[in-house]
Amino acid sequence: MKKSLPLPLTGIIPPLVTPLLNNDTLDTEGFERLIEHVISGGVHGVFILGTTGEFAGLGYKTRNELIRLTCKLVSGRVPVLVGITDSAFTESLNMAKTAADNGADAVVLAPPYYYASGQPELLEYLHRIMIQMPLPLFIYNMPVHTKVFFEPETVKISSEIPGIIGLKDSSANLAYLNQVRYLLRDRQNFSFMVGPEEILAEFVIMGGHGGVNGGANMFPRLYVDLYYAALNRDFKKIMVLQQKVIQISTTIYRVGHYGSSYLKGLKCALSVMGICNDFMTEPFRKFKEPERVRIKQFLEEEIHYQEWL
Amino acid sequence: MKKSLPLPLTGIIPPLVTPLLNNDTLDTEGFERLIEHVISGGVHGVFILGTTGEFAGLGYKTRNELIRLTCKLVSGRVPVLVGITDSAFTESLNMAKTAADNGADAVVLAPPYYYASGQPELLEYLHRIMIQMPLPLFIYNMPVHTKVFFEPETVKISSEIPGIIGLKDSSANLAYLNQVRYLLRDRQNFSFMVGPEEILAEFVIMGGHGGVNGGANMFPRLYVDLYYAALNRDFKKIMVLQQKVIQISTTIYRVGHYGSSYLKGLKCALSVMGICNDFMTEPFRKFKEPERVRIKQFLEEEIHYQEWL
Amino acid sequence: MKKSLPLPLTGIIPPLVTPLLNNDTLDTEGFERLIEHVISGGVHGVFILGTTGEFAGLGYKTRNELIRLTCKLVSGRVPVLVGITDSAFTESLNMAKTAADNGADAVVLAPPYYYASGQPELLEYLHRIMIQMPLPLFIYNMPVHTKVFFEPETVKISSEIPGIIGLKDSSANLAYLNQVRYLLRDRQNFSFMVGPEEILAEFVIMGGHGGVNGGANMFPRLYVDLYYAALNRDFKKIMVLQQKVIQISTTIYRVGHYGSSYLKGLKCALSVMGICNDFMTEPFRKFKEPERVRIKQFLEEEIHYQEWL
Amino acid sequence: MKKSLPLPLTGIIPPLVTPLLNNDTLDTEGFERLIEHVISGGVHGVFILGTTGEFAGLGYKTRNELIRLTCKLVSGRVPVLVGITDSAFTESLNMAKTAADNGADAVVLAPPYYYASGQPELLEYLHRIMIQMPLPLFIYNMPVHTKVFFEPETVKISSEIPGIIGLKDSSANLAYLNQVRYLLRDRQNFSFMVGPEEILAEFVIMGGHGGVNGGANMFPRLYVDLYYAALNRDFKKIMVLQQKVIQISTTIYRVGHYGSSYLKGLKCALSVMGICNDFMTEPFRKFKEPERVRIKQFLEEEIHYQEWL
Repeated sequence: MKKSLPLPLTGIIPPLVTPLLNNDTLDTEGFERLIEHVISGGVHGVFILGTTGEFAGLGYKTRNELIRLTCKLVSGRVPVLVGITDSAFTESLNMAKTAADNGADAVVLAPPYYYASGQPELLEYLHRIMIQMPLPLFIYNMPVHTKVFFEPETVKISSEIPGIIGLKDSSANLAYLNQVRYLLRDRQNFSFMVGPEEILAEFVIMGGHGGVNGGANMFPRLYVDLYYAALNRDFKKIMVLQQKVIQISTTIYRVGHYGSSYLKGLKCALSVMGICNDFMTEPFRKFKEPERVRIKQFLEEEIHYQEWL
Repeated sequence: MKKSLPLPLTGIIPPLVTPLLNNDTLDTEGFERLIEHVISGGVHGVFILGTTGEFAGLGYKTRNELIRLTCKLVSGRVPVLVGITDSAFTESLNMAKTAADNGADAVVLAPPYYYASGQPELLEYLHRIMIQMPLPLFIYNMPVHTKVFFEPETVKISSEIPGIIGLKDSSANLAYLNQVRYLLRDRQNFSFMVGPEEILAEFVIMGGHGGVNGGANMFPRLYVDLYYAALNRDFKKIMVLQQKVIQISTTIYRVGHYGSSYLKGLKCALSVMGICNDFMTEPFRKFKEPERVRIKQFLEEEIHYQEWL
Repeated sequence: MKKSLPLPLTGIIPPLVTPLLNNDTLDTEGFERLIEHVISGGVHGVFILGTTGEFAGLGYKTRNELIRLTCKLVSGRVPVLVGITDSAFTESLNMAKTAADNGADAVVLAPPYYYASGQPELLEYLHRIMIQMPLPLFIYNMPVHTKVFFEPETVKISSEIPGIIGLKDSSANLAYLNQVRYLLRDRQNFSFMVGPEEILAEFVIMGGHGGVNGGANMFPRLYVDLYYAALNRDFKKIMVLQQKVIQISTTIYRVGHYGSSYLKGLKCALSVMGICNDFMTEPFRKFKEPERVRIKQFLEEEIHYQEWL
Repeated sequence: MKKSLPLPLTGIIPPLVTPLLNNDTLDTEGFERLIEHVISGGVHGVFILGTTGEFAGLGYKTRNELIRLTCKLVSGRVPVLVGITDSAFTESLNMAKTAADNGADAVVLAPPYYYASGQPELLEYLHRIMIQMPLPLFIYNMPVHTKVFFEPETVKISSEIPGIIGLKDSSANLAYLNQVRYLLRDRQNFSFMVGPEEILAEFVIMGGHGGVNGGANMFPRLYVDLYYAALNRDFKKIMVLQQKVIQISTTIYRVGHYGSSYLKGLKCALSVMGICNDFMTEPFRKFKEPERVRIKQFLEEEIHYQEWL
């Protein structure tokens, strides 16, 4: 029988990129390598179909395939979280069902992202979707993409809805996150996970539960080590490791223009490192040669990436 | 054999609401009444699966059903335009194929709306999607929801991509629209349609081709008459009719709070008028009794809606 | 004795640029030429210290000098409107007093623009400042710069405050403006003026009172003629003149990058035309030679500016 | 002779509120009490005319008076920092001169906040204003109010301009701040100060230099103790003190609506505590009785404020 998810969930849970051969075909070999890469790097779970996983650009056939494939490849070694964010209620539930049927452990949901909703509308939506939700759920604050902010009071009330087990925040606003954690200080089992890897250390030092950090696709061990160093408040280690994290963030993620720079850089680096294909979903395209050369230089000459694998 | 779409497309093309019995079931009887209502009101086409049609909240099964049903019910009497906006390239193309297979006349596409794209990214995306597009396409500028603005230069370059036949703009920024029309002054067949009904008159008076106006769900004849009055520059009529349009806009659409006020008001009014059910897609809910009473009062006591049917 | 301002105020009231020799010194000769240029072009008033006049970048000594100089140079030939927008209440009132003391006719006020205010806060602010206001006042909707939108209901309530005589809107959202005008349809004397020159024609055709259009610094006669053509609904003329206005808007105002492109282009063109110096207030700098060459080319080869003077 | 400012500047530097009797009259007695209150609480400097000090709402006469009064009252006991942010270059320099003449130690400058500038424009502006700057300067990142973000690269280049000695960041985006600190890791003397008090602990634990925290107006000792606890990584203390800071932030600052809630709550609390008057600059008004009662209750029943003085 399936073990139940430990609550609160803790540690490093990489938001896996989705390796693709083309718009509708998974790079299954690359994905298998990626899964083994992060699990052998010590991660505490994997999260598919998040922003880093380009969920929004994938067709549903591919999303469902990815859910099945992930559950099969991970095979219970670590918890599997599945992003079910969608502008359509029914499609979110469909994906949740696929996730449950294939043995995933939890789902992650940002607000519907075409029509922006008011906070009361958002709360009622959560109440209604949870009635049919077959798995425990993380709410996902991602205001840049959804145009909707989960206000502290909304998170507080949400936390009382049965089945909602945590918050993943990608606002990078640690003041906000501290306020939310204060308001929920009595809910011992509620998980707080942080998206932006640049603040993982601070967040965990002060009691946050872990990180859903894109860079852990490339260097799972680095983020896991930083997580434990932060947990143990081993500042000597924290300082070295966080520097590395920020070095990555200010090089690999800053080669391109526009908001897609992070996604393109991450996927390109994974390709340079031989892990998986860097084909991207629309409306984006993978880096061309000049950008790829810069990514390679950053990896080799500044990050010295071989030492961090 | 199917008649080809007249270019530029002109007139009033209501963005039809999607009548629903519940989240996954079309109110087919209501929809049939709605279709007959707008066609008998003289509209020049219908547009389904737009913002007003709550496309983003509908599951794909329902979207495909709606496409088939619309084509069947309209049965060639007026052109059918189908919204295929989606965050996933493949799903946009799937819907376009369904539209083509069922005899729709054109499709309408806003930018992918989760990850915001830069203008060059947006242009390349359009180039790529048009290669496989089975129907002529309108680009759809809807910055409030998509976070991406089709800049004038981007529209200009887009207009040269084979298959792109027009622009539907819902920015309400007529200065922008005038700039775009100036830049494309040599493309005689390119259609310019305006979303916000409050500026339909001005737009058509100065040479715009028509309106995709939500209010035409309720009062198709009003908008059609205003269109012709504007085309003929019959100011006596324009003044009376535009007053009515703005009266609707400042009453029916302003009962609720949040951005959903327009959608809720429109659908509620259609229900009060006996045309179709006002069930709404998530994350929204139809108006409760107090708001419904106000909508009814507006319709009866201020708009005197019976006179405008 | 001073004639009172005709209400509603109508026509073209250019928002004058502020010609400068350096950051704290007016180019008084250039300013005199500019004043004579626009008055001889038939404008119905002048507006100083608006956004186009770079009010926010000018020291108060210079602002006060400009008020005095304008009133002296204009010498009652047309009404003088003075921008008194400021983040500090006291400084707004000080400028209003200078304006009144020197014989200006009205003042123009956008919301305080550092701290954004809620609509009730904005309304109370207006009530309080009007108590001490020595001149009639236009409220000025400029959301891009102030972060605050004068919502339709706020304008409606404001219009009842004694001394508030009109609205200048620079949102370019004609749907909004039409809604506001509908809500205030009973206030015959309330003036509606539009900032963006690209929609001047539509606005006046439908009953708007006039334009506060930056391009009228360069070509006052063009905007005045377009105003009258629109007033008379002479569409043959309107079409020719509006094309010219949009041509200016898509050339002169689009040479630079960033939001400052309009200001820099306008001031550069005035310099090329020999009217005044194009020194700009901080944080901006006038165009360098390559941009200036493009402005010159646009003026000569596309706009054929000599024919429009 | 005046001691030079220690670099990097460290510790708690409260952004002092500006106590007022009315719009143009300082509550000098209240201000004296406030100064003594914070100095006796152990703060490492004071900062006047910041966002918390309502600089933008004060007339220049009052701003200059406040500069003089502060320097006189502080009398060299701690460094005095003076906000000189203004939309007008000349007025910023005038205030800097007043600050220098009265013996202030440094000035603090956010970007001009009416016209938003591009990053290259911002950089050139900084270069030009520093030529005439009589005091060392902190750049002040306050994107909510100024609409301009000091991008990491811009801060890096700015840090090389002679006279620029630090960054005060109020974005609450700690990921950003960590990136900036990484890029400037070689500039040992460059000060990083953080505005939002909710992240003071994390920031200082990881090497940040201190906080410019509004709450230190009320409870200087609390923030100073938290600063030292963070400096010493005394987590037992940090946890207790940070809880208190966040309790304040989720009570006192959340009574009102709109963005002004923080300012109104802070000033009201200072009034309840008997420190100074809570008159506010336009466009705001102090809390009325019901809100004041809630502030009092929070102070007494939840914060137990007497124990934290």
